[in-house]
Amino acid sequence: MLQIRSPSLQLHARALSTNVAVVLSGCGVYDGTEVTEGVSTLIHLSSHADTTVQCYAPDKMQMHAINHTNGEEQDTNRNVLVESARIARGAVSPLAALDSSNYSALVIPGGFGAAKNLSSFAVDGADMTVDPDLVTIIDSFRSESKPIGMCCIAPIIAAKTIPNAKLTVGQSSGPEEIWPHSGAAGGCEAMGASHVDTDIDGVCVDIDNKLVTSAAYMKNATPSEVHHSVGKMVTEVLKMVSN
Amino acid sequence: MLQIRSPSLQLHARALSTNVAVVLSGCGVYDGTEVTEGVSTLIHLSSHADTTVQCYAPDKMQMHAINHTNGEEQDTNRNVLVESARIARGAVSPLAALDSSNYSALVIPGGFGAAKNLSSFAVDGADMTVDPDLVTIIDSFRSESKPIGMCCIAPIIAAKTIPNAKLTVGQSSGPEEIWPHSGAAGGCEAMGASHVDTDIDGVCVDIDNKLVTSAAYMKNATPSEVHHSVGKMVTEVLKMVSN
Repeated sequence: MLQIRSPSLQLHARALSTNVAVVLSGCGVYDGTEVTEGVSTLIHLSSHADTTVQCYAPDKMQMHAINHTNGEEQDTNRNVLVESARIARGAVSPLAALDSSNYSALVIPGGFGAAKNLSSFAVDGADMTVDPDLVTIIDSFRSESKPIGMCCIAPIIAAKTIPNAKLTVGQSSGPEEIWPHSGAAGGCEAMGASHVDTDIDGVCVDIDNKLVTSAAYMKNATPSEVHHSVGKMVTEVLKMVSN
Repeated sequence: MLQIRSPSLQLHARALSTNVAVVLSGCGVYDGTEVTEGVSTLIHLSSHADTTVQCYAPDKMQMHAINHTNGEEQDTNRNVLVESARIARGAVSPLAALDSSNYSALVIPGGFGAAKNLSSFAVDGADMTVDPDLVTIIDSFRSESKPIGMCCIAPIIAAKTIPNAKLTVGQSSGPEEIWPHSGAAGGCEAMGASHVDTDIDGVCVDIDNKLVTSAAYMKNATPSEVHHSVGKMVTEVLKMVSN
C-alpha cells in the first residue's frame, strides 16, 4: 500500500519513472531468447505507466545458429546482439554497457540462449559458467538491493550467481510431453538453489534475494499461457521496485 | 448472439474447433514479420478456447536480410519459412500447402516482410505484385466467405487482392515521429481501396468483404499498445467466424 504523502512528494514520485533493463540472448527458442517470452516481457513492462525499458545483449557470437524448422545447426553463425535487435526493433545496447545505477530492476527472459549464450548450462550442466559481464551486472543489482526477474530456463543463471536462491524452472518431474525439461530443476539444486515446483499459472518469489521466477515455456504451454506466466513475473518484480 | 439450439446441436458446435491459418513473412520488422505483431497474433488466438492455429510462410528467400541494429543489408540472405519458424517455435508449413478448406479464418500480421516477401510494395508501391500462392489463398478464403484479418502494413495486400476493400493502415497523415509510414494509406487508395483513418486503439471492419484491419506498428506505439491493436483485429475476425 502506498502511504499518504504530501502533494509535493506525490508529484516527485510521479516524475520518477521506473527504468528496467532487459537482457536478451538472441532471437529464437533454440539458440536465443524465446520470442514469445521476450516480446511478452516488453508488452507487460510497457503496459505499466511510467515504466521505461532498455534492452541489452552480449556483443558476441552465439554458441551456434539453429534452423528452427528441423533443429539442425546452420552453416553461418550469428551475433547475439544483432539477432536480439529483431525482438527489440533495433533498440538494444551491448551488455557490457549496462550500468545498474541507471535501473530499478533487471529482467531476463528464457529460451536456450540463456543456456547457450548467457551461460554454458546447455553444455556443462551444473558445472556451467555465466557470461562474465552478466555476473558483474547481477552482483551490482544485488548490491543495490534491486529486484531481478527471470523465467523459463533463465533461472539457472540465478542458481549459479545468487547464493541460496529460491527459484522455479517449472516442475521437477512430470510427463515429458508436458514438462520436457524437468531435469533442469535438479541442475538448479546441484548449484545450491532451492527449487520450488510451480505450474504455468504460478510465480516463485524469493523475498530475501529479491528474485522472481516463473515457468513460461518450461511447460509445453500455449502462447497465451506463457504470456500470462511472464506477466506474473513482471508484476512481482515491479511490486518489489515500489516497495 | 448465439441462437438457442437443441442440446445435440450445441454438442456438435462445441466439438468443432475454429482453425485459423496465420501467414508469416520472416522474423524481424525490417525484413520479415514484425515480431511483436506475430507473437501477439498467436497469444490472442490461443487465448480463445477451441481455437487452433497453424502458421504458414513462403518457402523462398527473403528480399534481403537486414541487420536490425543499423538497418544495413547483411551479407547472407535468409529463407522466409526458416526465419518464420523462430516466431512459430518450428511449427510452420510452406505457404503453398495452405488449403483454405481446413480453416475458418486467415490472419496476416505486419512488418516489412509483408511489403518485401509477401508482396513487392516496398519496391513497387501501388504497382506491386503479391506472392502468387497468397493470391490464390486469399481468393479461396473469400470464395468460401471466410474472414481475413491483417494489421500494420499487411493491409496493402488486401488493397491489391480484394476489390473495393475498406481498410486501415493507421493514419493517412500526421507527424512523422508518430506516424512514420502514413504515405501507405495513399498507396492503398491508389490500388482502389477505401482507407479509413484509425488510431492505435481502433479497428476497421469491412463487413461486405469480411476484412478486419488495425494499425499496430504503423504508429510509433508501445509494445503494449500494439499488443492490444492486434487483439482487437483478432477478436473481430473470430466474431465473424461465429456469425
